[in-house]
Amino acid sequence: RKRILVTGGAGFVGSHLVDRLMLLGHEVTVIDNFFTGSKTTVSHWIGHPNFEMVRHDVVEPFMIECDQIYHLACPASPPHYQFNAPGSLSVARPRCTATQKSTPQTEDYWGHVNPIGPRACYDEGKRVAETLTYGFQRQDGVDVRVARIFNTYGPRMNPYDGRVVSNFIVQALKGEDMTVYGDGTQTRSFQYIHDLVDGMIALMNSDESRPVNIGNGDEFTIGDFAKLVREIVEKVQDEDGVKRKRRVEIVYEPIPTDDPQKRRPDTTRAKESLQWQPRWTVRMGLEEMVRYYKAKMAEGS
Amino acid sequence: RKRILVTGGAGFVGSHLVDRLMLLGHEVTVIDNFFTGSKTTVSHWIGHPNFEMVRHDVVEPFMIECDQIYHLACPASPPHYQFNAPGSLSVARPRCTATQKSTPQTEDYWGHVNPIGPRACYDEGKRVAETLTYGFQRQDGVDVRVARIFNTYGPRMNPYDGRVVSNFIVQALKGEDMTVYGDGTQTRSFQYIHDLVDGMIALMNSDESRPVNIGNGDEFTIGDFAKLVREIVEKVQDEDGVKRKRRVEIVYEPIPTDDPQKRRPDTTRAKESLQWQPRWTVRMGLEEMVRYYKAKMAEGS
Ligand SMILES: NC(=O)c1ccc[n+]([C@@H]2O[C@H](COP(=O)([O-])OP(=O)(O)OC[C@H]3O[C@@H](n4cnc5c(N)ncnc54)[C@H](O)[C@@H]3O)[C@@H](O)[C@H]2O)c1
Ligand SMILES: NC(=O)c1ccc[n+]([C@@H]2O[C@H](COP(=O)([O-])OP(=O)(O)OC[C@H]3O[C@@H](n4cnc5c(N)ncnc54)[C@H](O)[C@@H]3O)[C@@H](O)[C@H]2O)c1
Ligand SMILES: O=c1ccn([C@@H]2O[C@H](COP(=O)(O)OP(=O)(O)O)[C@@H](O)[C@H]2O)c(=O)[nH]1
Ligand SMILES: O=c1ccn([C@@H]2O[C@H](COP(=O)(O)OP(=O)(O)O)[C@@H](O)[C@H]2O)c(=O)[nH]1
Ligand SMILES: O=c1ccn([C@@H]2O[C@H](COP(=O)(O)OP(=O)(O)O)[C@@H](O)[C@H]2O)c(=O)[nH]1
Ligand SMILES: O=c1ccn([C@@H]2O[C@H](COP(=O)(O)OP(=O)(O)O)[C@@H](O)[C@H]2O)c(=O)[nH]1
Repeated sequence: RKRILVTGGAGFVGSHLVDRLMLLGHEVTVIDNFFTGSKTTVSHWIGHPNFEMVRHDVVEPFMIECDQIYHLACPASPPHYQFNAPGSLSVARPRCTATQKSTPQTEDYWGHVNPIGPRACYDEGKRVAETLTYGFQRQDGVDVRVARIFNTYGPRMNPYDGRVVSNFIVQALKGEDMTVYGDGTQTRSFQYIHDLVDGMIALMNSDESRPVNIGNGDEFTIGDFAKLVREIVEKVQDEDGVKRKRRVEIVYEPIPTDDPQKRRPDTTRAKESLQWQPRWTVRMGLEEMVRYYKAKMAEGS
Repeated sequence: RKRILVTGGAGFVGSHLVDRLMLLGHEVTVIDNFFTGSKTTVSHWIGHPNFEMVRHDVVEPFMIECDQIYHLACPASPPHYQFNAPGSLSVARPRCTATQKSTPQTEDYWGHVNPIGPRACYDEGKRVAETLTYGFQRQDGVDVRVARIFNTYGPRMNPYDGRVVSNFIVQALKGEDMTVYGDGTQTRSFQYIHDLVDGMIALMNSDESRPVNIGNGDEFTIGDFAKLVREIVEKVQDEDGVKRKRRVEIVYEPIPTDDPQKRRPDTTRAKESLQWQPRWTVRMGLEEMVRYYKAKMAEGS
């Protein structure tokens, strides 16, 4: 049983990690400023003797005795990070910086990002967070882990945060047209949240202090992905006996500045060092997520 | 006549810039913490009514009314930046961030640097400084200039700061072997300090807010460069009637981690936007610098 701090623990990734750590019997403290997260994501743990939630901005110092830190606090979706990212750098001396989306193929990939575009605050913030993390290791002997997380989706993802999985599912469920940015030839590969949580915990408890990619290698063009989401939404609707007025259409909108053309992880290192590999197929994950959003929408939230 | 702030104004680049700005009749304030700079580089201006020198660390806020800021403060040589670079990011809202070594060919080059190696604190610090600079522009409408400075040499460069030009000249003048790191096939191109100062002032007074490369396009392998320095030192010694015991030899030492294999600026933008181009050939600049170091060594300093 360990004392574990999770920054950003009220967010999408953080709240799933908290669930798992609590079920494993650890003592968990969450710090979050609720900038994008919500108190409801972990409210089911409030009152539990092993759980504590502190409203706090990670830009300010925070003193705590603990065995492990998962540092997830960071505005992660485009509408938010474009005016807030630099704040996310300042958690002092984390044991585990479980962030970094900048996109390796293998972990030796040095990235290819525009340092001065509108996305730069996010991409460069992630780069420099790694630089600082290894600086703490080199200079102060801090024991560190670095997870490079690739696109992840699942329940509790904010339906309006603008990421592609939530946009597509919500649009298809509402019968609205699905918005593909650009010509839809750009690729992504999508990992289900439970696989990510497995990978982060395996990494934390391993001896691997080099960066490790955590992601799913199953690559889709965004155009094909839109069709897949539509198909799964239709399947779920058919099973539930929902009638559609018409088939939703796929429409094309301008591509955001500096949108990467391709992103797919090589997860060999995670397989070799952590004996981890993703277990959820995109079909399985999407179906679960469609049912989740559908239930939420039925509840009216 | 303008009020101009120069951070790092006691350093190599800063002190030459201060000389020029003072000669142009401006009011100049230097802030410097003397981490690598020295009070003697600008001591000839002390007492002048247009000049002020403040000991201050740019990590802390500094309030001043001024028209232009040249932000040069940053530990710039390998022995220093490896334990101090993150401090250099925090000057608030500079008008001109005249830094960035990370190495474009054209200004559209996105860089290719290891985010987690021992050089990373310098390279990533420069990247994120640009990101923040354009963030201030986007968010607060600050009028900014960004110079991407390529390898520069000249008088007042610290002879012991480990950079290649100073190492080679000092070694050759002392009759010691010249240390080439690696096999000497890596390339650099070297700009003389007066050209850089011209370029920075032209940029500041232009309307060009995109990044601008300031450097010399004359590219040498480090092996050839060692021979050139040796030849020029010998020429100067011969002219001054100095006798050598033996010809200095070129010896090979291990290459530092992540040493770039190639670096050469494309300065088309500077030529088109600023009507600037370098005027000093490497031969002319090196000869002046050899004479400067030789005089310093004769003085015993
Ligand atoms: N979801 C993905 O696909 C993905 C991919 C790569 C990396 N990541 C990274 O994983 C981490 C978590 O992402 P997420 O998808 O859960 O996003 P999220 O927005 O749901 O969660 C981030 C949490 O951090 C909190 N937060 C933000 N700034 C804070 C601050 N200054 N102080 C305290 N708390 C703060 C937010 O309130 C939120 O609860 C982020 O670092 C993100 O960059 C996510
Ligand atoms: N010389 C080059 O070839 C070269 C090439 C590319 C970029 N640059 C950049 O140009 C700038 C000047 O470089 P330089 O060669 O003159 O180096 P330098 O070390 O001679 O000058 C840097 C100055 O900044 C001061 N300084 C450092 N940290 C400070 C702090 N926290 N607060 C206040 N002052 C501080 C130092 O005392 C020094 O006087 C740096 O930003 C450097 O990265 C230089
Ligand atoms: O698996 C990959 C990942 C990235 N890239 C290239 O790198 C760019 C993205 O830059 P990076 O991955 O460093 O940053 P991101 O914006 O994806 O975080 C893409 O447009 C591709 O050109 C690639 O070819 N294969
Ligand atoms: O409604 C949307 C939202 C996103 N995208 C595209 O889907 C990809 C993934 O976008 P997201 O913001 O989810 O993640 P990231 O770009 O950070 O990988 C990008 O190419 C977006 O341009 C899209 O076509 N339609
Ligand atoms: O004019 C250039 C500049 C850089 N590079 C490549 O980029 C690497 C250096 O990375 P970068 O220039 O981004 O950073 P630096 O360490 O030079 O500041 C070099 O090793 C080269 O491979 C190149 O080919 N031509
Ligand atoms: O005594 C020295 C110092 C440097 N270098 C090499 O010269 C080049 C320029 O080094 P410097 O530190 O001056 O600048 P930077 O690497 O930042 O361009 C690099 O390839 C170094 O490995 C060398 O061969 N001998």
